[in-house]
Amino acid sequence: MNPVEIIIKKRNGIELNSKEIKFIIEGYLSGIVTDYQMSAFLMSVYFSGMTSRETSILTETMLHSGEVLDLSSIPGIKVDKHSTGGVGDKVSLIIAPIAAAAGVPVPMISGRGLGHSGGTLDKLEAIPGFRTDLSIKEYVEALQKIGAVLIGQTKEIAPADKKIYALRDVTGTVESIPLICASIMSKKLAEGIDGLVLDVKTGGGAFMKTLEDSERLALGLKSIADAFNKKTIAFITSMDQPLGFAVGNWLEVVESVECLKGKDVSDLMEVSHNLAGAMIYLGEKASSIEEGVEISKEQIKNGCAYKKFLEITANQGGNISFIKEVEKYPKSKNIVKLKSKTVGYVKSINAFEIGMAGIELGAGRMKHDDIIDPKAGLLFSKKVGDEVNVNDTLVTLFTDKDDVQSTLNRVEKSIEISNLKPEKIKMIKKIIS
Amino acid sequence: MNPVEIIIKKRNGIELNSKEIKFIIEGYLSGIVTDYQMSAFLMSVYFSGMTSRETSILTETMLHSGEVLDLSSIPGIKVDKHSTGGVGDKVSLIIAPIAAAAGVPVPMISGRGLGHSGGTLDKLEAIPGFRTDLSIKEYVEALQKIGAVLIGQTKEIAPADKKIYALRDVTGTVESIPLICASIMSKKLAEGIDGLVLDVKTGGGAFMKTLEDSERLALGLKSIADAFNKKTIAFITSMDQPLGFAVGNWLEVVESVECLKGKDVSDLMEVSHNLAGAMIYLGEKASSIEEGVEISKEQIKNGCAYKKFLEITANQGGNISFIKEVEKYPKSKNIVKLKSKTVGYVKSINAFEIGMAGIELGAGRMKHDDIIDPKAGLLFSKKVGDEVNVNDTLVTLFTDKDDVQSTLNRVEKSIEISNLKPEKIKMIKKIIS
Repeated sequence: MNPVEIIIKKRNGIELNSKEIKFIIEGYLSGIVTDYQMSAFLMSVYFSGMTSRETSILTETMLHSGEVLDLSSIPGIKVDKHSTGGVGDKVSLIIAPIAAAAGVPVPMISGRGLGHSGGTLDKLEAIPGFRTDLSIKEYVEALQKIGAVLIGQTKEIAPADKKIYALRDVTGTVESIPLICASIMSKKLAEGIDGLVLDVKTGGGAFMKTLEDSERLALGLKSIADAFNKKTIAFITSMDQPLGFAVGNWLEVVESVECLKGKDVSDLMEVSHNLAGAMIYLGEKASSIEEGVEISKEQIKNGCAYKKFLEITANQGGNISFIKEVEKYPKSKNIVKLKSKTVGYVKSINAFEIGMAGIELGAGRMKHDDIIDPKAGLLFSKKVGDEVNVNDTLVTLFTDKDDVQSTLNRVEKSIEISNLKPEKIKMIKKIIS
Repeated sequence: MNPVEIIIKKRNGIELNSKEIKFIIEGYLSGIVTDYQMSAFLMSVYFSGMTSRETSILTETMLHSGEVLDLSSIPGIKVDKHSTGGVGDKVSLIIAPIAAAAGVPVPMISGRGLGHSGGTLDKLEAIPGFRTDLSIKEYVEALQKIGAVLIGQTKEIAPADKKIYALRDVTGTVESIPLICASIMSKKLAEGIDGLVLDVKTGGGAFMKTLEDSERLALGLKSIADAFNKKTIAFITSMDQPLGFAVGNWLEVVESVECLKGKDVSDLMEVSHNLAGAMIYLGEKASSIEEGVEISKEQIKNGCAYKKFLEITANQGGNISFIKEVEKYPKSKNIVKLKSKTVGYVKSINAFEIGMAGIELGAGRMKHDDIIDPKAGLLFSKKVGDEVNVNDTLVTLFTDKDDVQSTLNRVEKSIEISNLKPEKIKMIKKIIS
């Protein structure tokens, strides 16, 4: 088989067969297919697309490029959640302990933040000592013992995806639905899960800006899950403004801990309870998503979710004294409040711009090897719909950098205040089950 | 500037500016832009296309990546001919000496055959001793002394094109009109020409199969030539059956010599006289193409074109005794005649299949480093429209290979015989001047 012929076939819009897709992917891992051929292939997929059949074969090939974990020794229906990424999205930190507390084993492999969006691994690593680099053996043991485990992609999991993703990042081929679907699902299927809850974000701070695109992505992901007989529920949720009040790794840990202890941050907890409810339902601990949501709320009220979070943290090496006394944590050198110059209501907060401002403060990375300041970030005092008076604090910036003026301007521009009370943002746009 | 941003811009169909195109091309030559980024860029050009403005900038950047020859010291209007390639296309060997004999200096840089189509360099090198690798100094001297010179692309000429072409060949990005146009024109403009005659082939044995595609290519090439103030006439000519009777390097040299000595191979000479006539017209040795055609015919009749061919050959190291006595040339070990099993008229000869059969016999290459047998090829006895009786020889195969059965079958399948006399193929489909 010749890689050029396969590239040309895809370029010409002809469906590839299983042999051809396997040749390209396995050949790329083994070096028969070069980087420059793979990037030409990826760009032709960007333009020509892939059928559901092709996307499933691509997923399967990437999945079997590495180890597929077998969690059958652990009792129960193992359920994970995947989010397509956003700003202030700390939902995993809240719902992994909730679902585990409700008796659903949660094997979770997460990613790092890149560009404007944050990543669960960076948030967890803000907790002193927390290890996300467990071996597969430790991962299985943790799941068995605690009922939930949160780690990063290991080198054993879907190495073809890892190599291809790195190439897509530098060749302008990230924004392709079949490639995104295969990348996400090959990793998720390798975890050994039985069910999956998908949180496809939509809006200005999301990867997919429109409801239509988000729905296409959700359906693409679900169709692969169906092909692999994994029970899946996809949510399309709002990412128009940051989720919750905190943006930045340690700030988000603190907000998660507060929520686990019962604080009701309404947008964040609406999304969290829905997703946790769906996990509990898929894990067969509830007969509907609605009943799952009630059980989820119960795990907060009875303190079990918070207790589970402490257990997970301790088990993965995290120092729980920082969770119990969050004020012990080191403080940013420069803490600056942005105050309102006007009266009215917060009309909108541009989540993308806030994510980018977070990077400027040290909370994120533009390149893979940038170093993150876990303390850095933004803490909002007002969200969309809130009433504002002159001199009210809108948001507080945390950074070790001396000069924050340009970031402050950026943040100010991204918060729109009007004299009309805006409509409440609908958080759950759609459920596809 | 970031290569990924430029790739994404082109991918999204936005016109690139001069700075961006220069950054990509010059960056690729210097190594700042990697192979895998260049191939993603080329594939996005394949899909998104390029405006005339972008194509001109691309051409100019590739042109100035190397030396641009200055032939102003040589008197006269220097005119070259470029063909997009076909099967049995030995026109350059015939018209370079014709135009030179008519007083038009011909600086010609040609290519090698690849895939089904032949290349002028391979044909010339079938003549024992013929050197196509002259230095630029020798090239200028030869043009001055003889009035015509035929060489291959040197490393000084458009190195960016050379590097990019090699990448296109292995990444499925050859078939893009702006890339083809920029590649051809950057080399042609670097030769130091004043005028150019283009022979855009159309039909089954051509790179462009339909008249529409051929016309798009012709217009693309012409618009670049116009932008660089080079006088250009584009012909669209038929490549439905092989041109002339001979296919294969030495066999084509022999046919060219016969035509230069006065043999009238009708399709071949119709194309040759038209192209030579246009060169003579552009070289201001005739007041119209038609007058140029008459002058071209005169150069055959008076023996000057044949004499010029001997001069060119001798000047580039070729042994002219083989031209004078072509039967002296070594013979193929295996010479096999394909005879007709039926009565009728030749309805069609699939030029692409004949080109591929030529490769099987040893006359061409599938990969750049394949070695050619100059003796190998096919010599037709019948062409489209000819009457055929049972047992008439249709074509003779020349090869050093022992087993030709499968090639014989392939050739047999590619010749269609019907009992109706077909219409004559129109050779000159269109002239764009």
